[in-house]
Parts: sequence; C-alpha cells; structure tokens
Amino acid sequence: MKNVIGREIPDNIEGFGKVRHYEGAYANLTDRVKVSVKTRSVKPGDSKLCETIDEVLDKLEVKDGMTLSFHHHLRNGDYVLNMVMAAVAKRGIKDIHVAATGIFPIHEPLVEYMKEGIVTGISVNYISPGPVATAISKGLLKNPAVMRSHGGRPRSIESGDMHIDVAFIAAPTADWYGNVNGVQGNAACGTLSYFMPDIEYADQVVAITDNMVPYPACPIDITQDHVDYVVKVDCIGDSKGITTGTMNITKDPVGLRIAKLTALFMDATGYIENEFSFQTGAGGTSLAVAAEVRKIMKEKNVVGSFAAGGVTGYIVDMLNDGLFRNIWDVQCFDLKAVASYRDNPKHMSMSGSLYGNPHVPGPIVNNLDVMILGATEIDTDFNVNVITGSDGIIMGASGGHEDTAAGSKLAIVVSSLTKGRLPVVKDAVTTVTTPGETVDVFVTERGIAINPRRVDLIEKIKDTDLPIVTIEELKEMSERLTGTPEPMQFGEKIVAVVEYRDGTVIDVVKQVI
Amino acid sequence: MKNVIGREIPDNIEGFGKVRHYEGAYANLTDRVKVSVKTRSVKPGDSKLCETIDEVLDKLEVKDGMTLSFHHHLRNGDYVLNMVMAAVAKRGIKDIHVAATGIFPIHEPLVEYMKEGIVTGISVNYISPGPVATAISKGLLKNPAVMRSHGGRPRSIESGDMHIDVAFIAAPTADWYGNVNGVQGNAACGTLSYFMPDIEYADQVVAITDNMVPYPACPIDITQDHVDYVVKVDCIGDSKGITTGTMNITKDPVGLRIAKLTALFMDATGYIENEFSFQTGAGGTSLAVAAEVRKIMKEKNVVGSFAAGGVTGYIVDMLNDGLFRNIWDVQCFDLKAVASYRDNPKHMSMSGSLYGNPHVPGPIVNNLDVMILGATEIDTDFNVNVITGSDGIIMGASGGHEDTAAGSKLAIVVSSLTKGRLPVVKDAVTTVTTPGETVDVFVTERGIAINPRRVDLIEKIKDTDLPIVTIEELKEMSERLTGTPEPMQFGEKIVAVVEYRDGTVIDVVKQVI
Repeated sequence: MKNVIGREIPDNIEGFGKVRHYEGAYANLTDRVKVSVKTRSVKPGDSKLCETIDEVLDKLEVKDGMTLSFHHHLRNGDYVLNMVMAAVAKRGIKDIHVAATGIFPIHEPLVEYMKEGIVTGISVNYISPGPVATAISKGLLKNPAVMRSHGGRPRSIESGDMHIDVAFIAAPTADWYGNVNGVQGNAACGTLSYFMPDIEYADQVVAITDNMVPYPACPIDITQDHVDYVVKVDCIGDSKGITTGTMNITKDPVGLRIAKLTALFMDATGYIENEFSFQTGAGGTSLAVAAEVRKIMKEKNVVGSFAAGGVTGYIVDMLNDGLFRNIWDVQCFDLKAVASYRDNPKHMSMSGSLYGNPHVPGPIVNNLDVMILGATEIDTDFNVNVITGSDGIIMGASGGHEDTAAGSKLAIVVSSLTKGRLPVVKDAVTTVTTPGETVDVFVTERGIAINPRRVDLIEKIKDTDLPIVTIEELKEMSERLTGTPEPMQFGEKIVAVVEYRDGTVIDVVKQVI
Repeated sequence: MKNVIGREIPDNIEGFGKVRHYEGAYANLTDRVKVSVKTRSVKPGDSKLCETIDEVLDKLEVKDGMTLSFHHHLRNGDYVLNMVMAAVAKRGIKDIHVAATGIFPIHEPLVEYMKEGIVTGISVNYISPGPVATAISKGLLKNPAVMRSHGGRPRSIESGDMHIDVAFIAAPTADWYGNVNGVQGNAACGTLSYFMPDIEYADQVVAITDNMVPYPACPIDITQDHVDYVVKVDCIGDSKGITTGTMNITKDPVGLRIAKLTALFMDATGYIENEFSFQTGAGGTSLAVAAEVRKIMKEKNVVGSFAAGGVTGYIVDMLNDGLFRNIWDVQCFDLKAVASYRDNPKHMSMSGSLYGNPHVPGPIVNNLDVMILGATEIDTDFNVNVITGSDGIIMGASGGHEDTAAGSKLAIVVSSLTKGRLPVVKDAVTTVTTPGETVDVFVTERGIAINPRRVDLIEKIKDTDLPIVTIEELKEMSERLTGTPEPMQFGEKIVAVVEYRDGTVIDVVKQVI
C-alpha cells in the first residue's frame, strides 16, 4: 500500500516481516511497554574474566541465528566488531544478525560474511559510504538491512521489536568485574551512549577491553550489574579513527553563504536568545552555521541552555566560552570532545533513549530549539533523504536526523542546491528518511524556503530582506543548473527497510542494478 | 513448615500471600527475568509541570489499592511522604500500600492512616524505632509489613514481586522537564540511589521539588526520560534531618575495646592490605572500628580499593587522606558526605540494585572484603536480629545487613555482650534478619567467636593472642551477666514478614501483646 506520504510499501517484507505503516510523525506517541529482560545472578567469588574471545563465545553459547550487537563510538577505528565476527565465522556459525549502532569502512570483512551466509541481517542507525553499504545496496545481504534512527534503535530494543542475544562493548577501560568507562586508555572515545539500551536489554553483555584497571574503574559509564563477562585483548581500536570525514568548518564560499543565511534566519525569527538550545552536525557547513551563530551570540551576549548531539571540539569551545551552560553528548567526534566529557561535569552524556526515543516521557530532542540538518535530497513536500546517494547506493542512515527534526522547534535543512552536478531538490526524494512534516526550513545559497505549515515563521521574517523563496522555486533553480536527471533504475528486491523512529516503516530501499 | 534455619513459617500468610521458603543464603542465585515496564510518551511541546500535589494526583489517577513509593534520603527530615499521603487521605482514597525505602519518626501521620484503613500495607528496607514501627508491632496495619534489604527491594521491584504504581521523588533540585539531582538546593541530601529501581520500574514517576532550576539541571542523578510529572512545592524537607541518631565515634570504653579487637582481628587474618575494600555502618562502635582500621592502614601504608555503603564524613576523610581510592555511596549520612559526592568524582553513587541485588550479574557487595555489622541479638548459629528489640517491638530493618553479610569475604558482627541488661547472645534470636551462614565472626568486649564454618580464619589466628572463644561461651558469659530472660510473649497475628534478599521468607514478626 501507499503510506501517508505516498511511498509504496508492501504489507509484508520477506526477511523483515509484517509492516506497520508510517502514519505521520506524531501519530504513534502513545503509552508503551518496555519488554522484560533476562538477568544472570553472579555469585560472590565467581569470576567474569575470560582469557580469549573464543572462551567467551563458548560461555555465551553463541549459535546460528543470534543477534549480536556492537556500537560505533570508535567509528572507523573500531576493531571489536571485526574481532568478534572473525571468531564467530571461524566456528562455522551462520545466520547472524549484526545489530550495530554504526558501520564504517573498517567493517569491510562483513561483506565476505554476507556472501557466505554467516551474516544474513544487519541493522544500523548510521552507516558510512563504503564497502558494507554498497554490498547491501547490491543485494548481497540475505534479509533487508534495517535502518533506524538513534532514537528509533533504543525504542526497538526497549519495546522488544529487536531482541539482542549478546551485546559486545568496545570498552576503552574496564575492571575485572565489568565496570567500564570510555574516557581512559589508548582507545578513549568518550561517551558510550548509543549502547546503553543494549547494556540494559541484551540477554548477555560482554566488555572487551585493552585497558584493564584495578577495581573499581572510575569514572564509570557502564556499571558491573549489567555486564556478564570481561575479556582482555591487545587492542580494541585506534582512537584516531574517531575523527572520520569532514569535521572542520567549510571553506567553500557556497557553504559559508548558506551558514550565514541560516544564522540570520535563526536570529530574525527570534531563536537566538537566552536559554535557547542548539544542535548541529559535524559536517563542514553545519559547523560553519555554528560559527555564525557563535558570532551573533557573542554580539548579543546570549547564553544558551544546552548544545546537544555528536560533539566536536568546536562545540566544546562554545561551552568553555560560556555560550552554552551545558552539553548533552551522544558521541564524541574528536579527542577534544573526549577530554571535555572526561573533565567537565557540564559536558554530560545522554543515552540513545534519553536522546531521541519517542516512547519515553520526553527525550532531549523534545527540548531542542534549533536543529541544523544536512540532506542528500529534499523534495517539494520537504521530505529529506540522507540514506541513498545520487547513484541510488546507500551512503548513510538517519542517525539523529529524524529524531531531532521531530523534536526541535525549528528544524533547518542546509544544503547547496546541487551536489555532484545533480539537483538536490526533487519532486520526490529517492528515499524518505525524515518526513517533511517535521522539517521547517530549507536554506540554500540561492534562497530560503519555509515549510508552508510554518505560517508563524513566514510572518516573522516578512519585513526582513532575507531571500525567501518557495521550495518549488528552489527546485526550478536547481534543475536549471543541472538539467532534470533521468529517474534512477532499481531492481525489485528490497535491500533495506527504513523504519521511522516510532517503529513504522516510512520507506524501503531497492537493489541497485 | 519449619524452614532450613528452623523458623516456623506458614505456607500462606494472610495479606501477604503464598510464601517461598528460605532455602539458604546462596540457594536461589539463578538466572532471572526483569519484568516489563509501562512507559508514557511525552510529545514535543507537552508540559510535565503541575501546580499542586492535588493536580498531579488527578493526572496520575491515584485510586484505592495502589502502591505508592517513597525514598528516605532525607531521613527524619523528609516532608514528601507526609505531604503526598495527606493529599491522598483527603481524597478518601483507601487501601494504599506505602512502599518506602525507609520510614522515620517524622512519618508518624501514617499511624492514623493505618487506623483509618487509608494505609493497609507498608514495605520498607529501613525503619527507625518510633511510632510507625510500634504501631506495626501492635497490629494496627491490616496486612503484614514487608521487611526487605537494600538489595532485596530492587530485586522485588525488578522481578515484578512488588509492582509500584507511582513513585514520588523527593527532589532537592529539578528542572521543569524532570531532570533531578540530590546535591543542590536547601534539602540537598546527596545520592538518590535507593530510588533508582522505582524510577525505572514504576508505572508513573513524579518529581516533587522545592528548588526548580533552569533547564537542564546539572549534574543529573535522575534523567527526564524516567519522570512523568514535576511539582514545585515550598519545601520538601529539612536536610538537618539527614543526620539522625548516633553518627559519631563512640566514647564508651566497651565499644572502643570491641573496635580495637575487631581491627586487630582484621589485621591478623590478613584483610588489611593494599586493594582491600571495607564497609561499616554509621553507629558509634562501627565508626570506632573505622578509626582503628584507619590507624593500621596509615601505619602499614595500605591503600584500599573502595569503601562502600551509607557514607559519613568520617569515610570521606579516609578517601581524602588517600586511604581508599573510591567511595561507593548508597546514602549520605551527613552534609560532608553530600558535599563530597557533589564535588569529588572519586565519590560515586550506586543504585540499590548495583549495591546489593542478588539477581544481577554481580552487585558491589560481592566485591566487599570486610563488612562491619551491628546486632540486636545473635544466636549460637550466628543468626543475627536487627529487626526486633528486647521488648519484641520492631525497631529496625535489614538495610544492607543481609546483603553485605552474604557478599563480603569477612562479615564481622560487633556488639557488647549485653544491651539494656539483657543478653545479646541467645539460643535463638527473636527474629532472623541475617542467616548465620553468612556471618563469619562475632566480636565482643569479652572475646571473639569465629563461625566454625570458617576454618581458614581459625587457622590464621591460632598463633595470635587474640581472645578467641566459642559463641556458646559468649552466650554463657552474656547470661551470667544478666540472667536468662523469660521468653517473650507474642500474639498469633503476623505483623511483619521478613524477606531474605532473594525473595524467600526467612522469618516473620508476630504482634506484641
């Protein structure tokens, strides 16, 4: 059937199951139940220590068909997923569902496991462009990958939609009884937030560490009462891999113009004021927006309440300058952020559920005033795609995109009008990640389009000289620059299911041919 | 039937239900299931603020038969339980089960509610001698009170044995969206640890605060994703009430001699060494033990790993002197402890479950080397009573007594041989709180009795001049001083059920007549 935003979705998807259809961003925010959880009693005197990954796999009784979960705080420097999956593969175990918070190019060995039927399912909230994403797009994974958001994943775990058999913590520091922190050791990566639901809801939890400290580890991000086993290995990863991709302010004049216009729009609509809260991504244009906002805050002596999200040194500087009272951090994007989280109590961690789970009594995204979002494509209904690229191949996932858009008072998408000689604005995006209902503004180098639903914003800027246009005008400009591209051709196989944060299916991704 | 330690317990107890009989301290440490939990979705823009207790009771739909829970971090300075129960009583609601972590003399209004049938059930992990305890002993409560330990209560909540309809947080500081801390405001009481299971498992959670701060509260002990409503009141309590009872080192020569002997015993048996961990109560003799241990640690340059439990300024001094690397705090007993928990990251909080729940993969009590325990009575099987006094009236509850005894490597009971001209050592204690199986040593002013099960300890001290005697000899000495008292007379009505930490019934308390 066609869902409420016009995407054609089957009622049943092979390898995924029955579909609950997307019904609108705020349609399913009703009371829920968190599922029951197995727990193991560890007696006084019992040890949790295992000498090797193999020994712990024995104790865990890992077998065909299990769901094993991993987290991506070490990003492209993570060795743990590969280490565990290599040991699993060696045992001849098949049909594993890898439930990772994020997948990066370093996880390329998964491609071979997909071909061999060792890995038949993958779910992620984030995926980098790279071999695994491409292999999924090409149909190499038996079951459709499931793409969730940072808030949707905790929801799926807590509701029982996604049951995790074993969660493997990449633990930068641990003691022998399973207390873990992310801020000490060679692979210190900061907060371990995304993995908190796994720690609480997995049947069994293992901490894999290369930095074993005397008991008790201090500070503690994950406490011993949630950890069943501890394994010491030589190296869990390379903390230099945390800083992946562009995490500097853009120098591109187009990006800088977009950033300037965005900040002016925020100011003109009254959002840059005392107590306001703000989140931006780590992309070059997003960081340029932060730089512009910073200038205005300083000029106006504005002190905001909090900045949130994945955190870069740039946001840490704003905290240290007194521009925000607090940071709420779900992932440290660089070592300056790691140090700040470690040393500054004003720099707080938030679990994935606290960050964005729509089925709790209020995640932090609900308190966000302004969110700056990226886009691969946006359509004239303001629906945004951050999953598939111009070639139809998977190159990302929602992360916090749809959560923050739904929660924040002002969700601004920033993008240049064209990317790689293709138009960014379309009649319909290839894949809907974030519904237009939750997107308020689209800022480009050629003008700003306000979602017509936001009559209040249109009213507020009517006396300014900001270049306000319609999204249809942006589409025309965009196509004038690039021409109208041929529609992409896809195969019939559904290679990925895009779950909205509430667990409904908002879209699917089909195989590239 | 008679349980394994010879206590006569019915298979069914009216107002309590079917009894699972106690089978030994380590008999029930098997895999378990944590129960599922209701959760409410709070939409962006929705408010959690209520103007009055009455308004929040309306929203919560509080009605007959509900279980309302409270915590005792404000101890005898807590106003919140009374405030909520007065509003409940005024509405004509009946048959409420008050699930409090602790009850103090300030909660005397409960006695009237018991008489009126407004309150028909009470469960506690701690109860002070006073009007409520006496009223329970006299049979004024319709159903038997349930006495649990600090670890047993989280177990009962997480397993679903005790379902909580509404948890009311006495919140020293909160923001309008339900982030709470215990370290700021006029009623700052430090950690809020005991209440963490309630926060996670209650159907609904309310924060009642007298110190509303701008969003977000920071630091945060309880996060907004667990809190449904927030109410601002004039005053939640008097933080001076935290320091209740004797929390200074005893000056009594008997207590000092016991303390000295205890420390010598710990040293002779090799427990005072680098990395050792230690817990003691806040009573005068217990603190005197800490003072003696401190001396030995300084002499020997010993650095311990952690001190745990309810924390006094005395333990904080040991942390600051570098005698322990860390503190694990379940309750601040004075304002020095509150300040330390607020300012020193080495002073960590532990939830009740992390502290003592036997059905998790290892509570902190499992890592305790030495625990110093008090006793009202001890018997020749080393069973300890801390619940009923010499008159048979309830004057306490386990708190962490049975948890730490079961977990620690060396559980030492310290007491004078007589109390109020009555013998402390008996053939059988009035009420078993802590089974003798988990008690290793009993230290008195006249000698030290080692549990015969601990042949290793007997071996270790055989060449010392410590005054080692049998528990039977201590009983004789005790009775020689006081005479053998007449057995106490009780009525037939069971007024309290004593649950062991694993949820089995270890004993019952009968009505005083």
